[in-house]
Amino acid sequence: MHKSRLAGFIIDCQTDDLAAAASFWGSALGMRLHALPPEEAATYVQLVDPADRLHIEVQAVSHPSRVHLDIETDDIEAEVRRLEALGARRVRQVKSWWVLEAPTGQRFCVVSCKSSGLAADATQWP
Amino acid sequence: MHKSRLAGFIIDCQTDDLAAAASFWGSALGMRLHALPPEEAATYVQLVDPADRLHIEVQAVSHPSRVHLDIETDDIEAEVRRLEALGARRVRQVKSWWVLEAPTGQRFCVVSCKSSGLAADATQWP
Repeated sequence: MHKSRLAGFIIDCQTDDLAAAASFWGSALGMRLHALPPEEAATYVQLVDPADRLHIEVQAVSHPSRVHLDIETDDIEAEVRRLEALGARRVRQVKSWWVLEAPTGQRFCVVSCKSSGLAADATQWP
Repeated sequence: MHKSRLAGFIIDCQTDDLAAAASFWGSALGMRLHALPPEEAATYVQLVDPADRLHIEVQAVSHPSRVHLDIETDDIEAEVRRLEALGARRVRQVKSWWVLEAPTGQRFCVVSCKSSGLAADATQWP
């Protein structure tokens, strides 16, 4: 058995100016910016939801801008198989996570637990 | 003065089979489906977040599939002007809401308050 739930979303921005993109989205959403460790800071800026609802990051990307969802889980392989059975397909593995594509075409990621909420609010799958 | 905050997101699906799209996303995210009133049900299905974090809907659309964010506010015109000053541009008005485009290219919507959380968690803008 494993668990999963919606972790949050990533605002993918096709830009060479991550700071400007993060500044816009932080101001638009009323969220402060949180700098990440050096190995992540060139690509990601975290936005802190004042209501502590979701994990949100702005990411600099080379593909066209979009928003993608992240599903967090305590067992990535089991969760990816569950999603494949629903009709999703694997696109590629990146470091510890998998990029999947939904039957309706959106790409999303399956990542390791990022929040303490997994225990309380996640769905437990058989 | 007015208030705004992130309300949630809409999973836009380019499909003629809204039920199948909603079924996939509900199962993927571990969220039950909530049928909307008849005037909305042909286009939207609500997904109920068990942690009650966000307002989430699956929408049948004719444009390519994507995910878009909704910002809720108690004053749509004031909020759109605030976002324009940050660099967003108006795309079109749809019923009571506005579709905007971010400087980084993502489209998002400014909508009237959907949640009781606006009072507690929203940012109050001068």
